[in-house]
Amino acid sequence: MATAPSVSYSITVRLEVPAGGRAVSQITHVVENAGGIVTALDVNTAAHETMRIDVTIATRDTEHAEAIVTAVEAIEGVRVHKVSDRTFLMHLGGKIEMRSKVPLRTRDELSMAYTPGVARVSLAIARNPEDVRRLTVKRNSVAVVTDGSAVLGLGNIGPQAALPVMEGKAALFKRFADIDAWPICLDTQDTDEIVRTVQIIAPAFGGINLEDISAPRCFEVEARLRELLDIPVFHDDQHGTAICVLAALTNALRVVGKDLSSVHITMAGAGAAGSAILRLLLHAGAKHVIVCDHRGAVHAGRDDLDDSLRWIAEHTNAGDYRGDLRGAVKGADVFIGVSAPGILTGADIAAMNDDAIVFALANPEPEVAYDEAREHAAVVATGRSDYPNQINNVLAFPGVFRGLLDAQAKGVDEDMLLAAARALAAVVSDEELGPNYIVPSVFHPDVTPAVAAAVREAATAVRAGS
Amino acid sequence: MATAPSVSYSITVRLEVPAGGRAVSQITHVVENAGGIVTALDVNTAAHETMRIDVTIATRDTEHAEAIVTAVEAIEGVRVHKVSDRTFLMHLGGKIEMRSKVPLRTRDELSMAYTPGVARVSLAIARNPEDVRRLTVKRNSVAVVTDGSAVLGLGNIGPQAALPVMEGKAALFKRFADIDAWPICLDTQDTDEIVRTVQIIAPAFGGINLEDISAPRCFEVEARLRELLDIPVFHDDQHGTAICVLAALTNALRVVGKDLSSVHITMAGAGAAGSAILRLLLHAGAKHVIVCDHRGAVHAGRDDLDDSLRWIAEHTNAGDYRGDLRGAVKGADVFIGVSAPGILTGADIAAMNDDAIVFALANPEPEVAYDEAREHAAVVATGRSDYPNQINNVLAFPGVFRGLLDAQAKGVDEDMLLAAARALAAVVSDEELGPNYIVPSVFHPDVTPAVAAAVREAATAVRAGS
Repeated sequence: MATAPSVSYSITVRLEVPAGGRAVSQITHVVENAGGIVTALDVNTAAHETMRIDVTIATRDTEHAEAIVTAVEAIEGVRVHKVSDRTFLMHLGGKIEMRSKVPLRTRDELSMAYTPGVARVSLAIARNPEDVRRLTVKRNSVAVVTDGSAVLGLGNIGPQAALPVMEGKAALFKRFADIDAWPICLDTQDTDEIVRTVQIIAPAFGGINLEDISAPRCFEVEARLRELLDIPVFHDDQHGTAICVLAALTNALRVVGKDLSSVHITMAGAGAAGSAILRLLLHAGAKHVIVCDHRGAVHAGRDDLDDSLRWIAEHTNAGDYRGDLRGAVKGADVFIGVSAPGILTGADIAAMNDDAIVFALANPEPEVAYDEAREHAAVVATGRSDYPNQINNVLAFPGVFRGLLDAQAKGVDEDMLLAAARALAAVVSDEELGPNYIVPSVFHPDVTPAVAAAVREAATAVRAGS
Repeated sequence: MATAPSVSYSITVRLEVPAGGRAVSQITHVVENAGGIVTALDVNTAAHETMRIDVTIATRDTEHAEAIVTAVEAIEGVRVHKVSDRTFLMHLGGKIEMRSKVPLRTRDELSMAYTPGVARVSLAIARNPEDVRRLTVKRNSVAVVTDGSAVLGLGNIGPQAALPVMEGKAALFKRFADIDAWPICLDTQDTDEIVRTVQIIAPAFGGINLEDISAPRCFEVEARLRELLDIPVFHDDQHGTAICVLAALTNALRVVGKDLSSVHITMAGAGAAGSAILRLLLHAGAKHVIVCDHRGAVHAGRDDLDDSLRWIAEHTNAGDYRGDLRGAVKGADVFIGVSAPGILTGADIAAMNDDAIVFALANPEPEVAYDEAREHAAVVATGRSDYPNQINNVLAFPGVFRGLLDAQAKGVDEDMLLAAARALAAVVSDEELGPNYIVPSVFHPDVTPAVAAAVREAATAVRAGS
């Protein structure tokens, strides 16, 4: 499947062309013939005989971009001056900054924000430690922590190469939930050291967002930190994904009129995301689930079960199915894939139960091609923005942390995740709901407030009960 | 010595008073009689018979503030509604925030700043690690690291109570040098753990500013981190202070027409600041120095020398003086104190050489009362903002880090500190120079650029030579 041109592979080309000719139409023609999409075009007359034209072009990938530039260069009279990559331009110098919220214009203001005035604020916190949430950035701060071991689909690229992703995440935290997040990229991939380091830097943060840490290390890191810290620890690749999937499934079931507790669910993928999705599905009331990994169904008789797989075997697959994914999908009501591209075909989806629901979330290529799935299933969702029903974690994590911080939560539990998922699902009204609209847009203004309110309420109930 | 009222102990009192009377003059009169200073007064007519008045009053301390409120309350017809502490109001919710520098208004912008576009930026850094300084916040970021063991004059108040100070420091970094600093408050006071934690979190930062870590731990932490890291590590309590002292001394010597290499210098204090000042003085060419601690002069014959004191004994006190501070000050040209309040008197200063220079930097009470020192010395400096010649680290650290970051420096050495001190001294022109003006104001616009340029040049020379 050829991917479509994307703005994330967008270039801006500065050209010099003879004035008075048909240069502009020639250029757009050549770009389109080469498969690019012109998204902006600015003409400046540089001199009497020549014009300067900046053309912004969405391309498929780096090679495609180079091919388009070559094609434009071949037009008679056209000179290519400079090719800029819009994505790289956006990242130049970093995407985030620190800002002071207090004015520091006079000596008096300095003496209140810093010495000697600040000493009284520090003493107040030393006397009453809870005041740290009132008088410092801890009230609103989240550490975005990675070891760089499983960054996007890129794998183990290390902490420095992970930094642009963590900065992007911090920017999203601010954009969608007004949270002050800061990237912490760890120069270690040792579980004990990760845990101890996060514990040591925790005092200045109100929450920890673990990001792009590979499985199974991420399970132990999270579990131990939750024990050790008095602030919430949330691994977005697990729980953010789980919340979005449960919300989407809730609405997909509304579309087809089935009930979570009675549907048969087959999952592909037993890694970080898969196991978190499973746990939240079970917590929400799902009863009939089979999880498959690359060796087929997870069942108690397998000799390769680690702790995580053993838990899965004990809590799913009551019928002790021992076959492959294809067999497990047959007759199922729901397929949820967080695994690998192209492992199912349209024929497999056709073999599912009537009104099938297919979430093929492998990125960038789903487990089954969207068009083939859509032909046979009632509802299809993917992780991609170029199809309907994109499952995107931006729907969950900003609101989850907003709610946790507002509640001054000391931890996060499955009830809070469940509340988040239900609130997210409820943003889609009965009138809006349909096979192509089971999750709201990430820009829907109700998403973060709704999720935040639900999480805050659930977290406040825990604090009150503890 | 009674301290003067200060804005850092400033309160705002909301009062209701009968309309039409002499309430305003009565209130200001009572406040002044009680020793407070009215710094602002706003009158709002709340109803026909009453006025609402907000009075902001600088006080000496918390008890003084309470006494003033009580005195105002005693005025007939005056009702006190609410007393707010301006310093605490300024700290509410924290003093810093994270901001995104890129717009995230559309799906296209999301796809460039975050997935999938950001993946290409991460890959570029994975291929060429130096690109991290071009494409991420590391270009401009500094970690402000403390373990909370020696916070201001408050002592070991721990990492959470230290956070308001670290936020203030971060705000100063931005205000004076446009640097993106973030507070890292460590929940450990173990030297090995501090070193290892800073090493592990270093990838996302372009520099490390150690802050308020107690001696002697701070020496080892800094020395080991400088060995381990490829970014500059700077302990402001040591090197920031040293730069400011050397700059001030350079200009004080200009005032009295003496030469650094020939003057006799007596220091009080051999802790973090004292030892760093000493090293920089020696590096700058000072030849005759005696350092005293609470046991008197440091000399090779003492049986209590740790590594730091032994280094001092080996590099100072060539005449093997074994007496107390008072004796060491006698006949000296320069006294530099970073020790304890009130350990010298006017008579001791009178016993110094002609045209004596006295830097009494203990905070908030200097080693010798300013007025007594000024009577006998040609130039006097303190750490206080209410006397001339305030030695304030804000003069140094912002420019130092600006220069280091701009040079993409991999470390910091004594030559860079020396360059910073000389540049800072040179900001004071011959016309401006005088006994009461040996250091520029922290708001002097040339300070940070001058220090930054000097440090950048020195750091670039090191990179070129390496």
